[in-house]
Amino acid sequence: MENYIADSPLLLPLREQHSRLRDGRLSARTVVEAAVDAHQRRGKHDNAYITWNGDGAFANAAAVDCVLTNGGDAGPLMGCAVSVKDNYGVPGFPIYAGASERLPEKWEKAGPVVEVLLSQLPSLMGKTHTVELAFGGLGTNAHWGAPRNPWDEVSQRVPGGSSSGAGVSLVGGTASLALGSDTAGSIRIPASMTGVAGLKLTAGRWSIDQIVPLSPTLDTPGLMAFRVDDLAFAFEAMDAAGSKAGRGKSFELDLADLTFGVPERYFWECCSPGVAEAVETAIRSLESAGARIVKLDLPGAEEVFELFQRGGIAAAELASFLHTENTGLMNRLDRNVALRVEEAQNIPAWEYVHRRQVIDQLSEMAKPYIKKVDAILTPTVAITPPALSDLKDECEYKKSNMLALRNTVVANFLGLCALTMPVGQDRTGMPVGLQVIGGGNEETFLLEVGRAIERELGTGLDILGTPPEPGTRDRLS
Amino acid sequence: MENYIADSPLLLPLREQHSRLRDGRLSARTVVEAAVDAHQRRGKHDNAYITWNGDGAFANAAAVDCVLTNGGDAGPLMGCAVSVKDNYGVPGFPIYAGASERLPEKWEKAGPVVEVLLSQLPSLMGKTHTVELAFGGLGTNAHWGAPRNPWDEVSQRVPGGSSSGAGVSLVGGTASLALGSDTAGSIRIPASMTGVAGLKLTAGRWSIDQIVPLSPTLDTPGLMAFRVDDLAFAFEAMDAAGSKAGRGKSFELDLADLTFGVPERYFWECCSPGVAEAVETAIRSLESAGARIVKLDLPGAEEVFELFQRGGIAAAELASFLHTENTGLMNRLDRNVALRVEEAQNIPAWEYVHRRQVIDQLSEMAKPYIKKVDAILTPTVAITPPALSDLKDECEYKKSNMLALRNTVVANFLGLCALTMPVGQDRTGMPVGLQVIGGGNEETFLLEVGRAIERELGTGLDILGTPPEPGTRDRLS
Repeated sequence: MENYIADSPLLLPLREQHSRLRDGRLSARTVVEAAVDAHQRRGKHDNAYITWNGDGAFANAAAVDCVLTNGGDAGPLMGCAVSVKDNYGVPGFPIYAGASERLPEKWEKAGPVVEVLLSQLPSLMGKTHTVELAFGGLGTNAHWGAPRNPWDEVSQRVPGGSSSGAGVSLVGGTASLALGSDTAGSIRIPASMTGVAGLKLTAGRWSIDQIVPLSPTLDTPGLMAFRVDDLAFAFEAMDAAGSKAGRGKSFELDLADLTFGVPERYFWECCSPGVAEAVETAIRSLESAGARIVKLDLPGAEEVFELFQRGGIAAAELASFLHTENTGLMNRLDRNVALRVEEAQNIPAWEYVHRRQVIDQLSEMAKPYIKKVDAILTPTVAITPPALSDLKDECEYKKSNMLALRNTVVANFLGLCALTMPVGQDRTGMPVGLQVIGGGNEETFLLEVGRAIERELGTGLDILGTPPEPGTRDRLS
Repeated sequence: MENYIADSPLLLPLREQHSRLRDGRLSARTVVEAAVDAHQRRGKHDNAYITWNGDGAFANAAAVDCVLTNGGDAGPLMGCAVSVKDNYGVPGFPIYAGASERLPEKWEKAGPVVEVLLSQLPSLMGKTHTVELAFGGLGTNAHWGAPRNPWDEVSQRVPGGSSSGAGVSLVGGTASLALGSDTAGSIRIPASMTGVAGLKLTAGRWSIDQIVPLSPTLDTPGLMAFRVDDLAFAFEAMDAAGSKAGRGKSFELDLADLTFGVPERYFWECCSPGVAEAVETAIRSLESAGARIVKLDLPGAEEVFELFQRGGIAAAELASFLHTENTGLMNRLDRNVALRVEEAQNIPAWEYVHRRQVIDQLSEMAKPYIKKVDAILTPTVAITPPALSDLKDECEYKKSNMLALRNTVVANFLGLCALTMPVGQDRTGMPVGLQVIGGGNEETFLLEVGRAIERELGTGLDILGTPPEPGTRDRLS
């Protein structure tokens, strides 16, 4: 039985939506109607959005259809259904960044990334939930509740964070593209846990202006979508650094020409049942298809995680923001956030300076290793998304949060870009992601590598189908 | 009566030395002989050098004269007498960076600046004293003694710091060009206090690799010489970013086309007798010569100084270096350095992060103001170089140090470049410098502005002559 989401035009590849919108087989209105329908059916269940924008999206769609009828074109993402994480400023929308109260109006102003997005006239479906100030990998939020991971109707499992509503907005059928941000894994973890593809950019590639800061050193925007191919389409549409001349001429890599490095250590430890197995199966499939698989342990991974567990650099940077920007927030923090901010208060300045130097040194050390291969393959997240009920204990939260972030934070600290794509399910039936790590500022190549893998393994929709309807216990596809 | 220094070829303009070396009127050997003679007569008195390199300089001069005879040319600085501050790595020379013991061998390796310098075959006269780890503006050093300011034979006055031996090497007749570094004023203060010209580059313009770090955020190399014109010659010889095609075609600015901003507040407060008067007289002369003088208070100056007095960001960065690089040094620090490092231990990480953000914000705010004028004019140093005997008291040291650095640190924190040039004497007869502040990375223009001023006011040698011979109480010129 096909469910309503599976039939939605929002699940079509962005390239397909793009051509259908332009040749009249699809209207922007139809897209918004499907999104609104999905939201009516399961919006409350999913809790992906802090601010829903159905009416605004309809108004935009009407305008877009007018433009399309007149042969106009505002850009590749015109008329696409998009959700934006609520730590980005979007004019006309209140911004909370997951905090208990609305942030000052200055944060509502659009930064460069939102400007580039909005100039293309997408249908903005709303702003999605985030962990408070993006500081957490599981997706919990004491003020607003966690969005529900749609893949388990029995247990209420976390959706991953900090871009906790982003993945849910996709699989819940209300968006084809979701903007998030990633400081230690906040794009890749929710993408992996909700069975979609996600791209974390190299820090510095896109501006973080007007994204509420967690760590100005490591924060970076990112994209989520159903397919790597969708990510490639959206990245090209939004990346100012990409050569306009080269657009549309996307090249196709052949797996037989690619060499993948697979670490033996670190990334595979303490995986939940079925996680390592799903990723190993995917890697074996790539090898059978001709890819060369070599052992490659990234130097510095353990050092990165040791530093990260001691608060890294983000905790102090967040503490600085809280101290100087809005001291009121400090006293009303989500307990899970507050605990780590409090620990950061004790880090002396010289230790912070030292940590940044260590990170720079580790990044330099890692560069020649990354260059040896076309990409590095690991599990994106080691663990099954925990049930909310298991996280009530502070120690349990801390342990799960660290383990969820362990495999992703390495790319942040080492100055790399990385993507995740769904490749299977774990023993509980939850989605499992393959992390594909590339060199700094090599997003275009990384996306082509990801597309080559996706052509071989299939998309997340091929592998996982769509999530069960609320109230059912069966997965439909 | 002419003294031996006044007759030295080292006092000739670098451009003049350059042409005389090439047309045979001057030999590299003659240059080194004059430097060695000066060093024999007053080296012990001046205490400018931690490592003297007379023999090495003679060997280099012999080789250079060979090259010159054969019509070869290794670069504009070939055969010039140069001193290098002892926080730069120079192969074959021990490095102390003002600390009580020799630093590990890895610091002796040449970085890009020293490589560029040495590739031109200058006669390297030796390595000059520095305040310990370059952390102080007066030039004192409990381990090695302060170089003596040559302009006062009665009181033993400080030479300014942290490049404490650099200015003394010039006026002592042992170098025509001195390499120093500047984090809060460490080029400009000793240049001003010893009556020479000094250029602090915009941080990031030249590499700080293999310069023992005080603050990797603010450290920057710099040059000292007798004239602004010498600085312009040496800067062009060493600046990789400068257009090679444009070299030699130096343009001459007309004072009548220039607008100078003169702050009304901050820089003029608490000046020692005669300091403000000398600078005001110089500014009036420029106005009489046609320059337009406008009032311009740099926003952020007070905020910069308030932050600086609380340790700024360098103290924590130095603490990080001491904690992680060589913990042994920490326990043997010069008391004047140790006190401020100890204070920095209490700065929390979030506060350091905040300070860096404040500095970035202040820099952004200052940009449009700098653009309103061709340069900003202020006294370089507010105070008469104090006598060593007055600095034995810790509070007195701290007060004098802060006041010495007050006018220079503004350019460091605001991301600007700046130079100083001698324009007169204070009530005690000590040299007074005019600080000329330019926009970030505008060194080439700033140097042309400085040359235009120098053509009007005369060089330091014109204004001050040369310092008295040791043991005399009269100034000779």
